[in-house]
Amino acid sequence: MYFPSWLSQLYRGLSRPIRRTTQPIWGSLSRSLVLSSQRRNPEFSSFVVRTNTCGELRSSHLGQEVTLCGWIQYRRQNTFLVLRDFHGLVQVIIPQDESAASVRKILCEAPMESVVQVSGTVISRPAGQENPKMPTGEIEIKVKTAELLNACKKLPFEIKDFMKKTEALRLQYRYLDLRSFQMQYNLRLRSQMVMKMREYLCNLHGFVDIETPTLFKRTPGGAKEFLVPSREPGKFYSLPQSPQQFKQLLMVGGLDRYFQVARCYRDEGSRPDRQPEFTQIIDISDVFRNTEIGFLQDALSKPHGTVKAICIPEGAKYFKRKDIESIRKFSADHFDQEILPVFLNTNRNWNSPVANFIMELKRQELIRLMETQEEDVVLLTAGEHNKACSLLGKLRLECADLLETRGVVLRDPTLFSFLWVVDFPLFLPKEENPRELESAHHPFTAPHPSDIHLLYTEPKKVRSQHYDLVLNGNEIGGGSIRIHNAELQQYILATLLKEDVKLLSHMLQALDYGAPPHGGIALGLDRLICVVTGSPSIRDVIAFPKSFRGHDLMSNTPDSIPPEELKPYHIQVSWPTDSKAAKAH
Amino acid sequence: MYFPSWLSQLYRGLSRPIRRTTQPIWGSLSRSLVLSSQRRNPEFSSFVVRTNTCGELRSSHLGQEVTLCGWIQYRRQNTFLVLRDFHGLVQVIIPQDESAASVRKILCEAPMESVVQVSGTVISRPAGQENPKMPTGEIEIKVKTAELLNACKKLPFEIKDFMKKTEALRLQYRYLDLRSFQMQYNLRLRSQMVMKMREYLCNLHGFVDIETPTLFKRTPGGAKEFLVPSREPGKFYSLPQSPQQFKQLLMVGGLDRYFQVARCYRDEGSRPDRQPEFTQIIDISDVFRNTEIGFLQDALSKPHGTVKAICIPEGAKYFKRKDIESIRKFSADHFDQEILPVFLNTNRNWNSPVANFIMELKRQELIRLMETQEEDVVLLTAGEHNKACSLLGKLRLECADLLETRGVVLRDPTLFSFLWVVDFPLFLPKEENPRELESAHHPFTAPHPSDIHLLYTEPKKVRSQHYDLVLNGNEIGGGSIRIHNAELQQYILATLLKEDVKLLSHMLQALDYGAPPHGGIALGLDRLICVVTGSPSIRDVIAFPKSFRGHDLMSNTPDSIPPEELKPYHIQVSWPTDSKAAKAH
Repeated sequence: MYFPSWLSQLYRGLSRPIRRTTQPIWGSLSRSLVLSSQRRNPEFSSFVVRTNTCGELRSSHLGQEVTLCGWIQYRRQNTFLVLRDFHGLVQVIIPQDESAASVRKILCEAPMESVVQVSGTVISRPAGQENPKMPTGEIEIKVKTAELLNACKKLPFEIKDFMKKTEALRLQYRYLDLRSFQMQYNLRLRSQMVMKMREYLCNLHGFVDIETPTLFKRTPGGAKEFLVPSREPGKFYSLPQSPQQFKQLLMVGGLDRYFQVARCYRDEGSRPDRQPEFTQIIDISDVFRNTEIGFLQDALSKPHGTVKAICIPEGAKYFKRKDIESIRKFSADHFDQEILPVFLNTNRNWNSPVANFIMELKRQELIRLMETQEEDVVLLTAGEHNKACSLLGKLRLECADLLETRGVVLRDPTLFSFLWVVDFPLFLPKEENPRELESAHHPFTAPHPSDIHLLYTEPKKVRSQHYDLVLNGNEIGGGSIRIHNAELQQYILATLLKEDVKLLSHMLQALDYGAPPHGGIALGLDRLICVVTGSPSIRDVIAFPKSFRGHDLMSNTPDSIPPEELKPYHIQVSWPTDSKAAKAH
Repeated sequence: MYFPSWLSQLYRGLSRPIRRTTQPIWGSLSRSLVLSSQRRNPEFSSFVVRTNTCGELRSSHLGQEVTLCGWIQYRRQNTFLVLRDFHGLVQVIIPQDESAASVRKILCEAPMESVVQVSGTVISRPAGQENPKMPTGEIEIKVKTAELLNACKKLPFEIKDFMKKTEALRLQYRYLDLRSFQMQYNLRLRSQMVMKMREYLCNLHGFVDIETPTLFKRTPGGAKEFLVPSREPGKFYSLPQSPQQFKQLLMVGGLDRYFQVARCYRDEGSRPDRQPEFTQIIDISDVFRNTEIGFLQDALSKPHGTVKAICIPEGAKYFKRKDIESIRKFSADHFDQEILPVFLNTNRNWNSPVANFIMELKRQELIRLMETQEEDVVLLTAGEHNKACSLLGKLRLECADLLETRGVVLRDPTLFSFLWVVDFPLFLPKEENPRELESAHHPFTAPHPSDIHLLYTEPKKVRSQHYDLVLNGNEIGGGSIRIHNAELQQYILATLLKEDVKLLSHMLQALDYGAPPHGGIALGLDRLICVVTGSPSIRDVIAFPKSFRGHDLMSNTPDSIPPEELKPYHIQVSWPTDSKAAKAH
């Protein structure tokens, strides 16, 4: 319960996300940054020649001689230009008299986005020319001297339009994309949030910030870990998916209250979100126990087979036929599942081949069970329990997004709704061999204290002490109480999971030397900041993200390496036979 | 000048290093940690069952019912034991009455270093039994209930003796080593120092904390970069030696005031320290211009040849013959250089084969030039200028260490002496081909503004805007003003350095789009904390360090990978012919 309340408190102290603002305008939006940094009283003009930042000037500065540095954002009729720094915008008057010809030349000829330094006086704008949308809109700068610090080539696009460009173009010119208000806002908010987290952990609760190695031993079965060849023949490091083992070893080492903003190396596969938000997931298998519909029958005859449905309130009012079609296509493509849409208002003729399957009687039963109303739509699926739940969880969010684009207010973007998910199973049947067990999360998770006796009789029923934290329907973190008893850990690894314990002998040994009871949580910082800023992608809250396929489009990474540079690492490339021809080019 | 003054200020707010304390005693030394954390008022007992930490209890807590958790540090005659947590030590009285038999059994039978939880009352120690060396020495705990949370196997050694063990053993059982006072102190101080740095940068000066990627493109000529194979045949990532390119791109992107506590992947080769501290480096080539001593003659006849010496005040008084021998051996082994020791007190017969070489006349000249006194020792070497300076710089520190072990007070460990080193050359002649140039630091360093014209006429004479920061003789950081002009950068890369600019085209392009003038500094955190804590090795300020050869001795890393796990990365091991036999074992 601490993290959510802390986050809410933190957030009230920070500025607001702006996703829903239709037209980002530099002047008015940068106000929030100005406010939040003014509160901190940073000395932005320490160390440097500038006396002030562009965004901070107000009527209270009238008459002051200032030196500003920034990018040329805009210029009109060679009479004024707008100068931008990270703090905001300010209007600069280009002198028109002959004596200032050299200053005028610099300011009129410099291309947009060039970097200039200007010195001058803060003056009032003429009456009627104030701009209330701009925090600096009451003043302007009467320039005396100017210097072109660096000229800019013609840009491939305008910075302010950048968010409209393709993501590939944005990633290729990331350093220009970073100048956009939205990226500046996201990265600065991220920095502030991480700092608040650190202050909370270090200063208020005595946590110790410790860096753990990123060149480590391969985790057994760690298929998604990057390898790093060493200079010893055949020996490799691995970039660990998380500091999992190290954080436990720090607890054994008496480093009470450890935390780290850690780099984790793994592929973030797409995971369906787990949290219901605006409707229920209801098991309606019994309604269809005796059905003539083939695929429902099929599903229910299998173990773990189920028929589940979600209700989309007022779905019939807002959804078009092509929406339903795209939902069905999505389900078939991504989950290999069929979806039956059920419309409760029988007067509407949807001309759908599946509508006929739902008999009037079943329809009435559904209405009763799901407490649906006219104009609602029920989306129904059948199949293996986990798969059906995953699909419906995903569809619930998709439908919410869709309804919101149609103007239905479902989720309050200013609210943070937190939810803990607990009582996960400790083990799951292995997909390839359901008689064997695998860890639902990882083999170090402790069993629920009330279920320990079941470990020796019915391990499948044991609940774990794993917990997930969900914010506005997005999983933002998870953690667990860990096993601190070496004997129990050995039993779970060797007897239940049939793992090779030799690879983890250092962990088992460490637990034997007085490991204290311990546990923790890891927040997914990228995802958390994403939710808080309302960004559509985690790539919008990371300075230099990789593309979907793991490429850096700016520098063309990963890249080829000449064979002689592979020699010290005792490796060579095994070219796939069908790409040998391609290599020759 | 900001960093040094800031560090000194910071340090006064923290506790003192304790290297020179001969016998670390838990009780008295942990006082400093208690003080520094009490000042911050951390809620150590939030979230957990313990009501207090072991180390915080005082007379002011008398009569309070407390619950403590900790490791059993010590037990005497089954009447009391000392419980330890990261905060300190407290004495616990084992109840002797029959009704408390179960509590007594737990506390008397638990092996040392087991984890226990005890509840009881804080009482005064009997008059005369107070321990003034222990911060909690006025009180003890009268136990009512006890629970064994985790038993400890017999340890391979005692925790308090750990620093005396070999480093290999310490690294193998790192989680036990971390329980030692010194490691707890070092890692907690490090965390506090980094937090202070962040507060200074973020809260006082508006810096933005931004993480940059560690999977990036190989730097041209980056021979010391680790490779990471990707799943695309023949394509590799590289773990960058520093966020060098990214920090410049952030400046181009308008992320003014960026900082990062960055992970850098490179081999820290041994570098001689550059700063004179207790004596001079003097060029005495002229004295030996006409000498009959072969190796001096030899050296002086070559370009850049020189004869240099340092003076060790009172060296003759404190140095034994074997010290001189080990200095000579060190110089021969590590620098391939001969060292001539010159003793100024001619009455002492050192019976050294080299002493005779120094004629009386030269001796007098040396005394005059170096202002030496009786009992001083002069160490003299000859050779290539850089090599001779490097060696003498190293010897100066070695001799200082040696003299200090003999009880001579040379350096005040409580003083922080900072020094900026500036005016480095921008280019150096290439070792393999002295007619070509290479960057003294890296190709992005800006030339000194007064020397820019020399770039086109005498590039060797151009000074750089690189700066190094030295603390107590140790280089702790360095940085530079960077080139922000694409044309200048292109000229230096292509014309002067003859580099393939294609590999850096994204950097050149970025500079062309309005890069602001920029520069920065990087502190070597490991080395800085090392100097501040007075640790002999950076491995003492890192939680899980690698050994000298890059091994993790605890988990046996790097390790072999089965060939099938290499397949997704399209690589195979090229076994060196002579190790194929070894592999078979």
